[in-house]
Amino acid sequence: MADQLRTRNEDYAQWYNDLVLKADLAEHSDVRGCMVIKPHGYAIWEKMQGALDGMFKATGHVNAYFPLFIPKSYLAKEASHVEGFAKECAVVTHYRLKSDPEHGVVVDPDAKLEEELIVRPTSETIIWNTYRGWIKSYRDLPLLINQWANVVRWEMRTRLFLRTAEFLWQEGHTAHATQEEAVEETRRMLDVYAEFAEQWLAMPVIKGVKTASERFAGAEDTYCIEALMQDGKALQAGTSHFLGQNFAKAFDVLFTNKENRQEHVWATSWGVSTRLMGALIMTHSDDHGLVLPPRLAPVQVAVVPIAKNGEQLDAIREYVRPVLEALRAKGITVKFDDDDKKKPGWKFAEYEFKGYPVRIAIGPRDMENGTVEVARRDTMEKEVLSIVDLAEKVEHLLQAIQSGLYQKALDMRERMTRAVDTYDEFKVAIEEGGFILAHWDGTAETEARVKEETKATIRCIPLDGDTTPGQCMVTGAPSNRRVIFARAY
Amino acid sequence: MADQLRTRNEDYAQWYNDLVLKADLAEHSDVRGCMVIKPHGYAIWEKMQGALDGMFKATGHVNAYFPLFIPKSYLAKEASHVEGFAKECAVVTHYRLKSDPEHGVVVDPDAKLEEELIVRPTSETIIWNTYRGWIKSYRDLPLLINQWANVVRWEMRTRLFLRTAEFLWQEGHTAHATQEEAVEETRRMLDVYAEFAEQWLAMPVIKGVKTASERFAGAEDTYCIEALMQDGKALQAGTSHFLGQNFAKAFDVLFTNKENRQEHVWATSWGVSTRLMGALIMTHSDDHGLVLPPRLAPVQVAVVPIAKNGEQLDAIREYVRPVLEALRAKGITVKFDDDDKKKPGWKFAEYEFKGYPVRIAIGPRDMENGTVEVARRDTMEKEVLSIVDLAEKVEHLLQAIQSGLYQKALDMRERMTRAVDTYDEFKVAIEEGGFILAHWDGTAETEARVKEETKATIRCIPLDGDTTPGQCMVTGAPSNRRVIFARAY
Repeated sequence: MADQLRTRNEDYAQWYNDLVLKADLAEHSDVRGCMVIKPHGYAIWEKMQGALDGMFKATGHVNAYFPLFIPKSYLAKEASHVEGFAKECAVVTHYRLKSDPEHGVVVDPDAKLEEELIVRPTSETIIWNTYRGWIKSYRDLPLLINQWANVVRWEMRTRLFLRTAEFLWQEGHTAHATQEEAVEETRRMLDVYAEFAEQWLAMPVIKGVKTASERFAGAEDTYCIEALMQDGKALQAGTSHFLGQNFAKAFDVLFTNKENRQEHVWATSWGVSTRLMGALIMTHSDDHGLVLPPRLAPVQVAVVPIAKNGEQLDAIREYVRPVLEALRAKGITVKFDDDDKKKPGWKFAEYEFKGYPVRIAIGPRDMENGTVEVARRDTMEKEVLSIVDLAEKVEHLLQAIQSGLYQKALDMRERMTRAVDTYDEFKVAIEEGGFILAHWDGTAETEARVKEETKATIRCIPLDGDTTPGQCMVTGAPSNRRVIFARAY
Repeated sequence: MADQLRTRNEDYAQWYNDLVLKADLAEHSDVRGCMVIKPHGYAIWEKMQGALDGMFKATGHVNAYFPLFIPKSYLAKEASHVEGFAKECAVVTHYRLKSDPEHGVVVDPDAKLEEELIVRPTSETIIWNTYRGWIKSYRDLPLLINQWANVVRWEMRTRLFLRTAEFLWQEGHTAHATQEEAVEETRRMLDVYAEFAEQWLAMPVIKGVKTASERFAGAEDTYCIEALMQDGKALQAGTSHFLGQNFAKAFDVLFTNKENRQEHVWATSWGVSTRLMGALIMTHSDDHGLVLPPRLAPVQVAVVPIAKNGEQLDAIREYVRPVLEALRAKGITVKFDDDDKKKPGWKFAEYEFKGYPVRIAIGPRDMENGTVEVARRDTMEKEVLSIVDLAEKVEHLLQAIQSGLYQKALDMRERMTRAVDTYDEFKVAIEEGGFILAHWDGTAETEARVKEETKATIRCIPLDGDTTPGQCMVTGAPSNRRVIFARAY
């Protein structure tokens, strides 16, 4: 805990990696590209899962589970999907090992699969192959299903949470009778993601649509939420795809419509992943360690007694008991840390580093005065408060931290978002980081040129905001509206 | 829904399979041995997960996540583990596909892994390899970690939920400073499983310890809970293993004890899986379909209006609104099914088949009389009840169903459990099914002979019950106590 972090200014990438390791969020495993999510990190992910799962269910979705393995031939059934996903995959070729006196355990050459299986990089193919049996009539629609699962995309250059070979995610796969309903669903889930990002992660996001070259392989349209990290780089935090009838056609999923005619089903898919852990960290954390919005903190309030002996400790226990009860009655998660093997200073450092939103300390002087010391992690401010109505005060404080973090992140994003009109201005701006609003002629060529020359990509064409037309900063050709460029994670 | 089930007496195995399919619990996928868990089945599994997860946390455990893949060499590190698990496994040998003009997508031969990766059949090896970095001193112990995950064990003969190549489970992996603490943990988690089985699944279980030949590969002792299905076959519903220092030694996990000496860490592991879905079904369900204990039912009460027209439907909505509110205020999950595209009779059949514990029907006559019709799924009884205090009555009814199902299953088990003294009696009894209590001489030879000759295995040496010594029914050699034999799933 006492270990110093590199500051963000010194080396942002190193700061991030050290923070993830030292705050016990995750670590690299011996298996190339695969991470271990440690208990503190996993507890935050569980909070995210709980919130998202509730939102999915509130919008009519149910969970199910589909196979980990996808027959190789399935990947090839949807023409553009295969381009995107039949690449860096984990391929299962055999189903048995055997003991070998010389080499220990070896793969049994007699147990070769007739068709190789791919560890799912995403599940559209296996799910739409299954939906064929589930959907016969318009009465079976819409089918609103989500899956919580692990997926694997072989990655050579990995970063904890941001890019790993195996990661955890949810993937929604819905089936609809009409294009209109499917588009509506795509947008609804984008809104759910945006609300989750803002209300739970306290992370402002821009909703938009991807350009054709950034689209999901197999989608007609990919919607996304884009966030801006402290170092001025963008992070795609969630995507929602309108898949048209592409997968229904690839897997022969037809239904009888109300007019008794056979039609292909319309589809959406949408997902967020453990990547959100990286977004959370890079949005709020500081040179002192992790900063967590209270709604995602596994423990919201740590209470630390400062006692010289067992007698004082007993007295403090008595003193805080009603406070602990009142906090818990409000649904606030509290840890009363009376472990006498660890010193208060060690505990303070630990809770600070691991991002506990509020820490309360109580010593003998506090008992005399009817007070406690309350420290908030986000601003590092401390104040001495009367113990009267303390639970109410802490409840308000947690709300203030939650909204304060959002506001701070929003202010940062506003500062780092600006419009430019010329490509020269753009090249300067992109070096400084942030979201750059610029006119673009709508061609893949210009997009590719900008990426090649500046490493910036079009993060999205925003759904909201200024829609004044103009001229492409690169070619001068007409542009419908400014789009958002940035360098991205 | 109108499809008839084969009765249990006609063909129990077929009844089970049809029920799983027709109640929309699960189905086979195109991927050999892998099932799709459908929304209704998954919702029950989520209920199980929620209850178990709460019990794990209440006993001090936290969740984490470890890699899906295990390097092949890890499996060989613990001598007896390799015998048990390095067999029927999914083996990843390559990490890239490529397009081939002639064959579509092919495995890229240039992307062969240096060391093959095994899709985890269980995670002791990868976890103990990780724990080496986490445990230095007795202060780091105990480490009480659980993982919710998918695992793969290649199976040639599969049955939905009971035996599938991929299944979902939780696996606890704990590390302790002393043998005593590890044994205590093993027993504690066995108790948690037994409590969960009895309180949630309404399934009585016998707690016991496995014989050496039925032990987990790598364990010093395997404890288990054994349940008896309606057809007289046993089902192992959960296991808790005391692993001694075997994995600590295999993976060099040492800690400095309080006396400042280096010692190997003591371990446990314990797990239950989606197999519990099979146990649940085969404990309670009947020839009319699924029967669910209320605590695991995704929806506990279905409310069906019987209306001739929209006006009547509106009146019924008004009439039941306070009842729905009162039920929900009690935390009871209710579905008010006013979908007018489906007839009441269809809905009744659906809810009966899918195991909704209580169904309430309301027609115009009920409104006049201030009544509703309440049907309970377990006994198929119906009664007309006054709407006054209906939520209280339903709450009591749900409790009565939960305890009634347990009692019924217990009665069945008691009837089907009996002691025999001779091997001839045993051979007759085992054909009739059930738990057979018999004396055994404690040797693997006798155990193997009984299995060979009767297909019965020793389910466990019970922890409780009669401990009178006797003579082995097969060899006449001395026996410490009767053990439980049965044919098993």
